[in-house]
Amino acid sequence: MEPTPAYRTLDATAIRALIASLPTIAARLGGASAQWQVREVSDGNLNNVFLVGGPSGEVCFKQSLPHVRVDPSWKMPLDRTFFEAEWLRAIQPLTGGLTTEFLHYDPDLYVLIVESLSGHTVLRTALMQGAHWPGVAPRIGMFVAHATFGTSLLARPFEDVFTARRLFAANLALTRITLDLVLDDPYRDHPRNHWHDPALTPIVLDIRSSAATLLAVENLRRRFLSQPQALLHGDLHTGSIMSTADDTRVIDGEFAVYGPIGFDCGMFVGNLVLHYFATPDRAARQATLHDIAAFWHRFHDEFLALWISHDTPPPGTLHPLAYGPAADVARQRFMDEIMADTIGFAGVEIIRRIIGYAHTADFDTIAASHQRATCRAGALGFAYYVLEHLDQVRTMADFLRHLAEHDGTGLPGPG
Amino acid sequence: MEPTPAYRTLDATAIRALIASLPTIAARLGGASAQWQVREVSDGNLNNVFLVGGPSGEVCFKQSLPHVRVDPSWKMPLDRTFFEAEWLRAIQPLTGGLTTEFLHYDPDLYVLIVESLSGHTVLRTALMQGAHWPGVAPRIGMFVAHATFGTSLLARPFEDVFTARRLFAANLALTRITLDLVLDDPYRDHPRNHWHDPALTPIVLDIRSSAATLLAVENLRRRFLSQPQALLHGDLHTGSIMSTADDTRVIDGEFAVYGPIGFDCGMFVGNLVLHYFATPDRAARQATLHDIAAFWHRFHDEFLALWISHDTPPPGTLHPLAYGPAADVARQRFMDEIMADTIGFAGVEIIRRIIGYAHTADFDTIAASHQRATCRAGALGFAYYVLEHLDQVRTMADFLRHLAEHDGTGLPGPG
Ligand SMILES: Nc1ncnc2c1ncn2[C@@H]1O[C@H](COP(=O)(O)OP(=O)(O)OP(=O)(O)O)[C@@H](O)[C@H]1O
Ligand SMILES: Nc1ncnc2c1ncn2[C@@H]1O[C@H](COP(=O)(O)OP(=O)(O)OP(=O)(O)O)[C@@H](O)[C@H]1O
Repeated sequence: MEPTPAYRTLDATAIRALIASLPTIAARLGGASAQWQVREVSDGNLNNVFLVGGPSGEVCFKQSLPHVRVDPSWKMPLDRTFFEAEWLRAIQPLTGGLTTEFLHYDPDLYVLIVESLSGHTVLRTALMQGAHWPGVAPRIGMFVAHATFGTSLLARPFEDVFTARRLFAANLALTRITLDLVLDDPYRDHPRNHWHDPALTPIVLDIRSSAATLLAVENLRRRFLSQPQALLHGDLHTGSIMSTADDTRVIDGEFAVYGPIGFDCGMFVGNLVLHYFATPDRAARQATLHDIAAFWHRFHDEFLALWISHDTPPPGTLHPLAYGPAADVARQRFMDEIMADTIGFAGVEIIRRIIGYAHTADFDTIAASHQRATCRAGALGFAYYVLEHLDQVRTMADFLRHLAEHDGTGLPGPG
Repeated sequence: MEPTPAYRTLDATAIRALIASLPTIAARLGGASAQWQVREVSDGNLNNVFLVGGPSGEVCFKQSLPHVRVDPSWKMPLDRTFFEAEWLRAIQPLTGGLTTEFLHYDPDLYVLIVESLSGHTVLRTALMQGAHWPGVAPRIGMFVAHATFGTSLLARPFEDVFTARRLFAANLALTRITLDLVLDDPYRDHPRNHWHDPALTPIVLDIRSSAATLLAVENLRRRFLSQPQALLHGDLHTGSIMSTADDTRVIDGEFAVYGPIGFDCGMFVGNLVLHYFATPDRAARQATLHDIAAFWHRFHDEFLALWISHDTPPPGTLHPLAYGPAADVARQRFMDEIMADTIGFAGVEIIRRIIGYAHTADFDTIAASHQRATCRAGALGFAYYVLEHLDQVRTMADFLRHLAEHDGTGLPGPG
C-alpha cells in the first residue's frame, strides 16, 4: 500500500494543528493549541507515539510510519493504526475499562488518538523495577475471556463473525510479521535472528534438529492461520499492557486478527515466563508462578461462566443442541484445546524473544553477562523442553510444575 | 441485498438479446440470435438455468432470482451467481477438465454463462437409472484433492489464502442455508423438517435425544465455520455433478466457502450412501461401496502426492520445517483429520436429506411405499449409528464395514 497523497509524518507543530481541528479533543486538552505540550513516548518497534497535553487534559497520539520505526529500510504499509482502531472499537464495549478509550481515527494520516494513561507504567518496565501487582494477571485473564468470547461464534451470529473476520483478514503485513518472526525464522538460519551468548548456540542447534519440536511449531503455525476462533489482540506481551496497582489497560492492538484464543493467552504467559527467568530472586519467581496460575484460572473460569450464562436463550450461532453433563464434557474439551494452544504459543514466544529478531528488555536487569546468559539459557531450555514434550506438558499445572523445576541452567532440576 | 436497479429476471427474448451483445459468446452459438433455441433446464431449488443453442454451439445460462426458485416467499440475495463465478475462476486452473469452462459473468443481472455440457447426465439421475460408471468416483476424488490442496495454505502464501477467504466469507446467505438445513434444523423441531413415513419418527426422536449424536453435530457445526482449510464447493452432492462414462464435471459452486476439506468429501460420500440404501439390489450396493472406497483412496493419495511433491522448493506458507519420518506422521495426522470430518459430514448429510427440508430423489425409484420407508430407515439408522459412535467409526474402512453390515432395517446386521 502506497502512502495516500494526504499522508505525511506529523511533527509536534502539525500534531497541534490536527488536534486543534478536532473540537471535542481540543476541548479535552483545554487552553490554546500553541501551549500544548507534545512529548514523544515511542518505545516500540513500529510507530510514532506522542502524548499531547493541555491545561485540562492529555491524549495519546499514534501515527503509522511507512516503515518499521527502528529500521527505516524495512518498509511497511500504513494501515496498522486502522486495524488498531478497529480492534479498539470491537473490543472496548466487551471489556469495560480494560483498554483505553477510543477518541479519533484519521484514515488519510493513519493517526489514532486515544485516552492518555497517566500514572500507568508499561507492565514489563514495572516488573523489571520489581513491582508486584497481584491484580494485573487476573485482570488480563478477564480481558482475554471477554474479548475472545464476545467476538466468537459462541456469542454472535456467524454473519457478524464472518464480517469481522473479513475485516481483520486484511491485516496482512502484521500477520506476516508474526508468522515470520514468531513461527518461522527462529527455527532456521535467518539473518534477522541473533543472540549474544555463545552458550545459547548449542540449545538453538538442538531445537532446530528436534523433529518433535519442529512439528509442534508447524502445528502452531497452522493453528495460528487456520483457527479463527475469536478476535485476538495478536501481540499481548507485557509491553502491550500499562498498569498501576489497581488499574490495568491493554494497548497496541495493531496485530489484531481472528485466530486461536490460546495465542493471546500464550503470548502473555510466555512473557511472564521470560520475566520469571530474568529474576534470579526466589520470592519474585514464586510470585510470577502465581501470576501465571491466576491469569489462567481467571481466564478459564470467566470464559466458561460467559458460555454457560449464554445457554438461555441461545445466543451465537454455536448455541448448544445438547445440555447436561455431556455438554459440560464438550465445553471442557474446548477449554483443553485453548490450554494446549496456550502452552504451545508460550513456548514459541519465549524462543523468539531470545534468539529471534525482537528481544525483550527483561534480562537487562541482570548486570553480570554470564548470569544473563545462564538465565536466557534457562528460559530457552524450558521452552524447548515444553515444545518437545507437549504430550507430557498437557495442563497448566504440568507447565507450572516444569517451570518450578527448571533451575535456570536450561536443564530440568531435581524436582 | 436489494436487487440492483438494472436487475430483472430475463426471459427467452431477453436472454437472446443479452447474448447477442457478447460477441465471443454469440460467435460460439453462430447464426442469427432470433433463431437461437432457449431451453429451460432448471431443476434445482434456487436458480433459473437455460441452455441456449445456435447452429454452431450451445452455452449454459444461469441467473439468480431474488428468492428461492421453488419457494418465492423465501427471499434470497442475488449474489449467489457471483460466488459461483468466483469459485469457478479460482478452481478451474487447478482442476483441469473437471468443471465447466467459465465464459461470462454479468454483475448487474447476476448472470453466469458457462460451457454447456452435452451428452452429460446429472450423476444422481444416472445412478437412479442404473448407470454404473466406475471412473466417476475417483475423478471426484481427483477434483477435491486438486481444488482443496491448491487453495490451501499448503500450496499458497497465506496472503493469497486470506484474500480468498475474505471474498468467500461474504457468501453469507448460502452459508446460512447450510448451517440451518444441514447442521441445525434436523436436530430439533422446525417447520422446514418433514418426512412421510411414520416409521422414521422413532429414529428421529432417538437422534434428538442422543447426547453423543448432538455433541457430534455441534462439533461439526463448529468445524464447518471455524476450519477454513481450503475453498470448498460447499454442496458436492450427486446433483452437482454431470457425467458421461468418460467425462465428469462438477457444476453449481454457489455455496463456495472456505471450510474443512472433509466437508466436501462428506457431502459426496453421504450422497453415495443415500444411493446405496435406495438400491435394494445387492450387486449395485457392492458397486457403490466400491465407489466410496475409490473416491476416498484417490482423494487421499492425490492430496498426499501433491503435498509431497511440493516439498522442494517450499511453496505455500505452511512449508515444512521438519522432514523425514516425523513429517510423514504429521501429514498422516492431517489426513486422518480430513477422514474424521468426512465421516461426520457424511452422517449429517444423510440425515438432513431424509428428515430435513431438501430431500433427494434417490428413493423415488422404489415403487412400494413400505419398502421406501424401510430403505430410508436403513439410511437414517446408519447415519445415526455413525454419528453416535464416531469413536468406533474412525476410518473409511470402519465406515464401509458398518455400511456393508447395515441390512436396510436401520439395525446393524449379523456382520
Ligand atoms: N494511551 C497511552 N497513554 C500513555 N502512554 C502510552 C499510551 N499508549 C502508548 N503509550 C506509550 O507509548 C509507547 C509505545 O506505544 P505502543 O506500544 O502502542 O507503540 P508501538 O510502536 O505500536 O509498539 P510495538 O512496536 O510494540 O507494536 C508505550 O510503550 C507506552 O510507553
Ligand atoms: N453447464 C451445463 N450444461 C448443461 N446442463 C446444465 C449445466 N449446468 C446445469 N445444467 C442443468 O441445469 C440444472 C440446474 O443447474 P444447477 O444445479 O446449477 O442449478 P441450481 O438452481 O443452482 O441448483 P441447486 O438448487 O441444486 O443449487 C442441472 O441439474 C442440470 O440439469
